[in-house]
Amino acid sequence: MDRDTIAWDEEIGVIEYIDQTMLPGEVRIVRCGDVERLAQAIRRLEIRGAPALGVAGAYGVALAVHRSTARDLSALQQEASRAADVLAATRPTAVNLAWGADRVLSRVRASTSPEQAQDAAVREAAAIAAEDVDLCRTMGEHGAALLPDTCTVLTHCNAGALACVRWGTALGVIRSAVEAGKQVSVIACETRPLFQGSRITAWELANDGIDVRVIPDSAAAHLMRQGRVDAVVVGADRVTHDAVFNKIGTYMHAVCARHHAIPFYVAAPYSTFDAASSEGDVVIELRSREEIAWCGERQLLPAGIDALNYAFDATPLDLVTALITERGVFHPPVSIEDLNRARQTI
Amino acid sequence: MDRDTIAWDEEIGVIEYIDQTMLPGEVRIVRCGDVERLAQAIRRLEIRGAPALGVAGAYGVALAVHRSTARDLSALQQEASRAADVLAATRPTAVNLAWGADRVLSRVRASTSPEQAQDAAVREAAAIAAEDVDLCRTMGEHGAALLPDTCTVLTHCNAGALACVRWGTALGVIRSAVEAGKQVSVIACETRPLFQGSRITAWELANDGIDVRVIPDSAAAHLMRQGRVDAVVVGADRVTHDAVFNKIGTYMHAVCARHHAIPFYVAAPYSTFDAASSEGDVVIELRSREEIAWCGERQLLPAGIDALNYAFDATPLDLVTALITERGVFHPPVSIEDLNRARQTI
Repeated sequence: MDRDTIAWDEEIGVIEYIDQTMLPGEVRIVRCGDVERLAQAIRRLEIRGAPALGVAGAYGVALAVHRSTARDLSALQQEASRAADVLAATRPTAVNLAWGADRVLSRVRASTSPEQAQDAAVREAAAIAAEDVDLCRTMGEHGAALLPDTCTVLTHCNAGALACVRWGTALGVIRSAVEAGKQVSVIACETRPLFQGSRITAWELANDGIDVRVIPDSAAAHLMRQGRVDAVVVGADRVTHDAVFNKIGTYMHAVCARHHAIPFYVAAPYSTFDAASSEGDVVIELRSREEIAWCGERQLLPAGIDALNYAFDATPLDLVTALITERGVFHPPVSIEDLNRARQTI
Repeated sequence: MDRDTIAWDEEIGVIEYIDQTMLPGEVRIVRCGDVERLAQAIRRLEIRGAPALGVAGAYGVALAVHRSTARDLSALQQEASRAADVLAATRPTAVNLAWGADRVLSRVRASTSPEQAQDAAVREAAAIAAEDVDLCRTMGEHGAALLPDTCTVLTHCNAGALACVRWGTALGVIRSAVEAGKQVSVIACETRPLFQGSRITAWELANDGIDVRVIPDSAAAHLMRQGRVDAVVVGADRVTHDAVFNKIGTYMHAVCARHHAIPFYVAAPYSTFDAASSEGDVVIELRSREEIAWCGERQLLPAGIDALNYAFDATPLDLVTALITERGVFHPPVSIEDLNRARQTI
């Protein structure tokens, strides 16, 4: 990719992002100058992936402040606060969204004039985006060291450049390994119901010339049993002190990896860590039945039959071989202190 | 369902079947008077499910014999043999297909005149179809006894009436349990890539008034961990002395069921048993990349990116809590003698 997944257009003061619902058929760039429209884009998964959501939350608050016509600071701060609330309410599971919004919000709250707030908000959001690129690079190097010189890595959903600003978390580990001269083949699980694996992961890896094949999610265990998977590397939407929340299906891969003694790695930047929370505190988003009931134009499920469409699942940390962070590699059991250490920014 | 999945139309001497690729939108009845067309229907999964394939193989050879214009017995027998070969070559994994074809073929070979052969072939095929209904009923009763009075059963793919002639194997167990007054809720895995779970299983259970919800295949382990699955019941395409071959994803469910100490049952009639073979002898069908690359009219995977589309996987018998057969319930480890005993017809 020669462009960022999400960025700020200085010239016209809008957010620019790649609409991920249109991939791989079209790389559609959306210019968004409205917080409500941004919230809709997040709900529709035009923007998705925990780190990218963090940046979207940040730019969203910056956008509200930048566009505000409020004359006094207090009114401006209230607008920023409302924008943060609107954005944080779009999706409950990924912690990054609220984190990014709050980080910009605190700069707005610390400002002493509307002009200063506007400037600080955009600068903080841009700093978060730039930091994300650095984090992914550093995480990638730490993770790459864990992979054998020649290996096949299984991944789920998309924890790639398109889930971040660039490079990616899980796919960043793979990219860094390839950059370091390792021979890495990737098995991408297609990731039902929205096919982020086939539509996005396979597409972005193939664009980079990295060998990738796609399987139905349910075929992963079969390939593990055949000895065709050397490691599993996935991203995370939230890491509590006891569990990793990630795309539905991650837990199944973790159980099957353990059964076959295959290392299971989670690559996650500090913005994903929520060491103060326990698994039970986190709401798992239940998405629309329609994502399961339809395949394109074709109805799979007659009206009246229900579907359970959990967007995420929780994998207990004891099934995780290692957490790959920008602060290094942590092997569970990890303490809350370890997680907090991992959480300190670089 | 008020009609058989596959049957012989006495009046015009053709096979009648429900085209399962059209479900649930349309219950299309196809009349087939040609072995090549039948072979195509099997390759296209218009007819699918191991027991139904056994009946299709049987009726297919009967059709060839019935339609033959051969004047002498030897030519007729050769035609029957060619038909059996054509049908058996359509799909390599389910053992029932060749079994049904061979059973009719042996009647044709034992006949002493073309007229007798034609009569015997159709009668044998009809007997196999009638036997299938009885087998499913008996299997259902054996299996129903294993289920708690109130329970949620997870199933994969379609091992229902539409995989057989009526009633079903795995879904037959559920139907028999419901008939016996048990409160059974079903979680149907949608079953990528062809959605037999949502399109067929959910549809046929809902038609019978049985409570069913559909999930992506990858969500099964998450529900198991939440304590929301009391048993897994699936069918089989072939049972060797060491493994159960069934729809891709079955093995993953077996591993996850074991991890959560949930019973994992396989319902299979004797025609599915191949105790003489080992897992390594069986060819797992690799189907077209296109089934993964497209979702209806929408392209998920750009040209040039490969997919691995195994239609089946193998589950070692030690992950199977019990094999439910028409001869009773067998708890592994089972010997070849056990399997052969299960294999004797009722």
